[in-house]
Amino acid sequence: MAADNSHAAGSRCNVIQVAQQARQSSQRLAASSGESRRAALLAVAAQLRRRCGEIVAANQQDCRRAEQQRLSTPLLKRLRLEPAGVEKLCQAIEELAHRPDPLNQKLESRQLDQHLILHRRTVPIGVIGFIFESRPDALIQIVSLALKSANCAILKGGSEAQATNSRLVQIIGEAAAQVKEIPAHWLALLPDRQAVQELLQLEDYIDLVIPRGSNQFVQHIMRHSNIPVLGHADGICHLYIDREVDSQMAQRLAIDGKCQYVAVCNALETILLHRTIAPKLLPQLVGALQERGVETRGCEQCRSLMPKLAAATEEDWRTEYLNTVVALRIVQNLEAAIAHINHYGSHHTDAIVSSNRERANFFMQRVDSASVIHNASTRFADGYRYGLGAEVGIATGKLHARGPVGLAGLLSYKWYLYGSGEVVADYVGQAARPFLHRDLKDE
Amino acid sequence: MAADNSHAAGSRCNVIQVAQQARQSSQRLAASSGESRRAALLAVAAQLRRRCGEIVAANQQDCRRAEQQRLSTPLLKRLRLEPAGVEKLCQAIEELAHRPDPLNQKLESRQLDQHLILHRRTVPIGVIGFIFESRPDALIQIVSLALKSANCAILKGGSEAQATNSRLVQIIGEAAAQVKEIPAHWLALLPDRQAVQELLQLEDYIDLVIPRGSNQFVQHIMRHSNIPVLGHADGICHLYIDREVDSQMAQRLAIDGKCQYVAVCNALETILLHRTIAPKLLPQLVGALQERGVETRGCEQCRSLMPKLAAATEEDWRTEYLNTVVALRIVQNLEAAIAHINHYGSHHTDAIVSSNRERANFFMQRVDSASVIHNASTRFADGYRYGLGAEVGIATGKLHARGPVGLAGLLSYKWYLYGSGEVVADYVGQAARPFLHRDLKDE
Repeated sequence: MAADNSHAAGSRCNVIQVAQQARQSSQRLAASSGESRRAALLAVAAQLRRRCGEIVAANQQDCRRAEQQRLSTPLLKRLRLEPAGVEKLCQAIEELAHRPDPLNQKLESRQLDQHLILHRRTVPIGVIGFIFESRPDALIQIVSLALKSANCAILKGGSEAQATNSRLVQIIGEAAAQVKEIPAHWLALLPDRQAVQELLQLEDYIDLVIPRGSNQFVQHIMRHSNIPVLGHADGICHLYIDREVDSQMAQRLAIDGKCQYVAVCNALETILLHRTIAPKLLPQLVGALQERGVETRGCEQCRSLMPKLAAATEEDWRTEYLNTVVALRIVQNLEAAIAHINHYGSHHTDAIVSSNRERANFFMQRVDSASVIHNASTRFADGYRYGLGAEVGIATGKLHARGPVGLAGLLSYKWYLYGSGEVVADYVGQAARPFLHRDLKDE
Repeated sequence: MAADNSHAAGSRCNVIQVAQQARQSSQRLAASSGESRRAALLAVAAQLRRRCGEIVAANQQDCRRAEQQRLSTPLLKRLRLEPAGVEKLCQAIEELAHRPDPLNQKLESRQLDQHLILHRRTVPIGVIGFIFESRPDALIQIVSLALKSANCAILKGGSEAQATNSRLVQIIGEAAAQVKEIPAHWLALLPDRQAVQELLQLEDYIDLVIPRGSNQFVQHIMRHSNIPVLGHADGICHLYIDREVDSQMAQRLAIDGKCQYVAVCNALETILLHRTIAPKLLPQLVGALQERGVETRGCEQCRSLMPKLAAATEEDWRTEYLNTVVALRIVQNLEAAIAHINHYGSHHTDAIVSSNRERANFFMQRVDSASVIHNASTRFADGYRYGLGAEVGIATGKLHARGPVGLAGLLSYKWYLYGSGEVVADYVGQAARPFLHRDLKDE
């Protein structure tokens, strides 16, 4: 049934209808048992495996078109889905299926009075709009997290992956629909950006939008949405090299942060160096980075040590390169490093390399970012590496979920109060009955 | 120092400066010890007690002006602050002061690899704009929750309470500033709605806005804010009376929900009755409500049983009365009650009265509201009654915090990763080092 949706969407999409149907489905999906959602995920994995040939064929179609349109090699690489990749995704879905049901978990329980019991329990958010880039594996991660957490998903993937994505949504929708408690219309694929624009206005039906993609695109969505948005626009990440430091480690973290994968949000933009170690460390560091093809730009103080270094401007401190460029700045002290990061950074991921644990803690407490790291690469800030299983994105806001967002970020909660006829009138005024307010441990 | 702010605000307020100063203070306040914030709260309580005379005098000034302006009696009652009231507030502040520090609590801990340890710890949200109605006790609740959770607070209270509020902010600011780690400018009071308009645009400095007040006012803020808003516009609450029911209990819950306090968000708007019990229960219920001065409006089916009943229109189902009016509707079954509530309600608080626990659970799971209640009054949905200590408001959205919002709703979290030089390059590719991903229990 969901597949019908995505097909209808292929011609001319009635976004309001898609959103209304998802809203209606969301109440049934929220009431589904963990067992049904587990069975649905297993059915999805089985069908993806069985129909792997169709998926790969659709993906080849996308890849051919992308080659004709001369997409860059890294983008082409991210677009391609081969049988081994499908198998790996199926295994990840199965692993997720067997995790405990995240719904109806008691977050707190309290006895308000003898027969008045309060529970706060996890529930799904409802209907989530996911807008992401070309990678078809992102679609599968997102959809399986949504299904596990009983959220309805309205998707818009990259247009380069359209054939792959629409085949995936069809197969997933058909597989899940075999399971009794899974409603039709819990999953839909939007055809184009115009449909996304319409979706962003439908706050009555959509609870949350999670966009992944270019800075400009995410900013555009944040500005134009009536619906809460979870995600990040910029990923301006810093490594601060402190005065007491293992130089080898500093260099290793700088190179991993900058070079291991440049096109991602948790890669390094700016390296800050404590003034006392800069004379020794800066030349080594610049040499090592340039050796790996990185363009280095330095502040005035850096250039007084290395006059041949290109000049970094104010603009550099604010730029997410997503490329083999790095900015270098010498700072007077730890406080100046923190001030630079809080001023120019994007509250995403920032690291300190220091042999002094106390100074590291000072840095980590004061840097106002979702992830703060001591003596490790910023590239670790990721849902898979953090052990969340998978992620739907990384959030730099402070509300709801922050940093890598996995299953837990797709949940809300609800207060359940069970009484036996209690009225508030008995608990107010002169002869007010007192509340018990006794916290209940797991019972 | 904060008091200076509020005074400057009295003449012509530089909202950007107030917001920037709060943002700067927020990093220092976030790094303050729990002990300092405890001491600051105790100092605040001591000063409020000592300067009670000034507060009551300022309040009398507000009350005289309100009487001249012919404010309604309930509003006047909510505005008035007497010595006994101040004492009660001081005791509540002291109780809050002695609660455990909510910051730096480990929410999860995971060993990613031998020497790579991840913690997720609570942190404050940062700078919060609180916009509320006249009640001076709301100011004290809000400010003390903000201080306990290390959030900077920019306030705008009702103009009727201006003298009281500005005296309270002055005393609280001066008292807290005596404590070493508490920064100046963590607290400010805005003078007027124009200043609020300006504040709503300052998303670089303000992390969250929590408005309390009339439906229209909150909706206006939600529409015009670039900053995330936590709260609710409507409180359209329902009581559904099921087919198997203790009639006395049903009547008691209806009367408490409607009459105990009409001007509040968790009071009843609509009572739904299962068709099989309506012939017997409706006349009793209408009689009991009318006896208490409640205007009753019924659906067509109600009027076929009681022809003299005034007619409820479609508009009634969507209206928050905040007054002694109630709408009554007969529904075919449990599902129809749920459908009515999810369609017309505001996802705030809805109750079922039923002798059948299974049917109650069906209702509670499917009604998409922040609080769902079985056999108790909707009026219990409140931070104090739920045992949260105090509340800054009630949220009907599903993100971040839902229902009554207490201390926990004023927290965010941050990921702390501690390594020993680990780089991501070692964990990818053919010879990838595997992650350990071992959850750590409290250590």
